[in-house]
Amino acid sequence: MKFGIVIFPSKHLQDRANNLRKRYDTHYAMIPPHVTLKAAFEAPEEDIKGIVENLHNVAFQVQPFTLKTTKVGSFAPVNNVIYLKIEKTPELETLNDLLHSGYFEQEREYAFVPHITIGQQLSDDELADVLGRLKMIDFQYEQTIDRFHLLYQLEDGPWTVYETFHLGKE
Amino acid sequence: MKFGIVIFPSKHLQDRANNLRKRYDTHYAMIPPHVTLKAAFEAPEEDIKGIVENLHNVAFQVQPFTLKTTKVGSFAPVNNVIYLKIEKTPELETLNDLLHSGYFEQEREYAFVPHITIGQQLSDDELADVLGRLKMIDFQYEQTIDRFHLLYQLEDGPWTVYETFHLGKE
Repeated sequence: MKFGIVIFPSKHLQDRANNLRKRYDTHYAMIPPHVTLKAAFEAPEEDIKGIVENLHNVAFQVQPFTLKTTKVGSFAPVNNVIYLKIEKTPELETLNDLLHSGYFEQEREYAFVPHITIGQQLSDDELADVLGRLKMIDFQYEQTIDRFHLLYQLEDGPWTVYETFHLGKE
Repeated sequence: MKFGIVIFPSKHLQDRANNLRKRYDTHYAMIPPHVTLKAAFEAPEEDIKGIVENLHNVAFQVQPFTLKTTKVGSFAPVNNVIYLKIEKTPELETLNDLLHSGYFEQEREYAFVPHITIGQQLSDDELADVLGRLKMIDFQYEQTIDRFHLLYQLEDGPWTVYETFHLGKE
């Protein structure tokens, strides 16, 4: 079974992201706008109890924090992805670290760049065009984050939430 | 803001439902397969704390139970919906009652028929055709349900999970 761990930002930010995602993100229908804390990982279905226990422990170790979006960025040319940049905070880094060590040991392909994807699988021309336009727009916004979610993936791609974890609580 | 309260069944059942939903359900991309406990209701965003508190109280009053699917049914001719029938259990009825009284007072348009929608907005001919074929198929399945979820709706229709509630726990 494929699991993932994400933050869903506020409705305001999700609506803003989806406005772009519905045009530019091929995963629009698979999952609401999110900040990935741990990318999809394989685990047997019966491991879910252990995963949940360990996630409660992770949540307990990190306090609620302020998430700030700043501007649009891109992973091109490595990956033709456009995203909303999230300011790195100690809490986000700790969460990402805890979710890639100990019980959750996993090698990371890239450095952790917290973001909300708003476009992917764009052609080079489309990417340049969309990025050029979005760079002009103000995406300054902040909100409190006090939770994250464990998800699993269904056949054909959509994700379902299994459980919510509250930061600073067990 | 529009809220809703649902049960997500197991991955097995969701995969089975989605296999049909991707062809017949216009809401396929909006939300994973689910059993609606309380249909979409309007509440101001600042009510969310009160909603969550009251849902913890509801969850505490109902124990985990066995969900059984039996066969395919339809709300036609009132509504051209095809669904997977869920056996009524005392727990499902109590949940539905608690979610339509007291703090959650809401008039119900129809009697509570627990189900997982697999097709909607079908033409009369398509409905008759699909229903005829699906009636031949065995949908006997059972699983334990130990949680439900509070969701809110984004612009343009998709739903995001806000929180998980565990039956029999506060």
